[in-house]
Amino acid sequence: MKVGVLLAGCGVFDGAEIHEATLTLYFLDKEGVEIVCMAPNIPQKDVINHLTGQPMDEKRNVLIEAARIARGNIKDIDEVSVDDIDALIMPGGYGVAKNFSNFLEKGADAEVIPQVKRLLVDLFKAGKPIGAICISPVIVASALREAKPTVTIGTDIDVAKTIEAMGAKHLTCPVNEMVVDEEHKIVTTPAYMLGKSIKDVAEGIEKLVKEVIKLAKK
Amino acid sequence: MKVGVLLAGCGVFDGAEIHEATLTLYFLDKEGVEIVCMAPNIPQKDVINHLTGQPMDEKRNVLIEAARIARGNIKDIDEVSVDDIDALIMPGGYGVAKNFSNFLEKGADAEVIPQVKRLLVDLFKAGKPIGAICISPVIVASALREAKPTVTIGTDIDVAKTIEAMGAKHLTCPVNEMVVDEEHKIVTTPAYMLGKSIKDVAEGIEKLVKEVIKLAKK
Repeated sequence: MKVGVLLAGCGVFDGAEIHEATLTLYFLDKEGVEIVCMAPNIPQKDVINHLTGQPMDEKRNVLIEAARIARGNIKDIDEVSVDDIDALIMPGGYGVAKNFSNFLEKGADAEVIPQVKRLLVDLFKAGKPIGAICISPVIVASALREAKPTVTIGTDIDVAKTIEAMGAKHLTCPVNEMVVDEEHKIVTTPAYMLGKSIKDVAEGIEKLVKEVIKLAKK
Repeated sequence: MKVGVLLAGCGVFDGAEIHEATLTLYFLDKEGVEIVCMAPNIPQKDVINHLTGQPMDEKRNVLIEAARIARGNIKDIDEVSVDDIDALIMPGGYGVAKNFSNFLEKGADAEVIPQVKRLLVDLFKAGKPIGAICISPVIVASALREAKPTVTIGTDIDVAKTIEAMGAKHLTCPVNEMVVDEEHKIVTTPAYMLGKSIKDVAEGIEKLVKEVIKLAKK
């Protein structure tokens, strides 16, 4: 079995959340599945100094920075077909919202970039499961608007309302649990939307990884 | 108990190895200890495009990039005293060799930068344990030359010979194991010096984390 891991860069404030991404790789590897890391070959929306939280006057590329998490073993998402993978997992991080969509500006009207939307729609149509961690469920809810999936981003009322305005259903969920939409094969967990500590985040991600693999085997 | 985690940036080819660093944080958190991330506030030796392996025409700072792994919760190592922590763990990555020393140019004659050497020597003198992952044992062997510690970097014969030329003793060790120098309270594991896969690397790191905490309690 091959499971894709879609990365939005490298770092919580402008890319993929590093702990969530690494833990996803760890638990997938423990389950013995093959991992296919991928990212879009596009400029980052911004570069944030993670020490100060302030923007830096730099340009970085999502695929090149995501390659740091993947230790160089990563594909341009444009080269990945739905036939290449049995499931996909999206770790979170602000980069997911900022680099994969205009969610921060448009809210419920957000559009997902075509590179990411194409693969999500193809996977959904093929009945292949999607796991979405942290803020990533907003991308799933936006890209698969017509499907009206059930997801969680934890307990954040504003984001939950926005997700419901997209037509999706939101369930509150603790950090060490997940929400499973069996009908649409979509699994979500709040991770650092809620988690204070890496071990709590890991618990939810481990459950999500196992559930995504279980759904992919059905 | 407080355990320091010393980071050399963010990315295997020019900074801290991200999986090793994240797994260290994960297993420390599972053990319930307080984590103190730190890095020196110095320029990176280089910036490597992790997609191509080639150098990039960029300047980055070790502390600012390491803050990505620490989610912003990180200190300048100059602000950390031996009294602030009960033990220290150093994840690996080429950045450890390149940013913390001149090991790649000088081999057995390598010197460790004063910021890092000061804390390692102070910890050693205070009888506080040091855990070193992947290539980090060369930094420990160099900084604590007079102590002649016993360490491992796995099975790499060239690096092992260089470590022995520094006066340290090298033991070969599989990726899922560790070498414990009880006398000097130094624990080492090969991680990605040997490991092909994140789950193997995690096994050795989990053992190292537990052993470092055990030694710190003695």
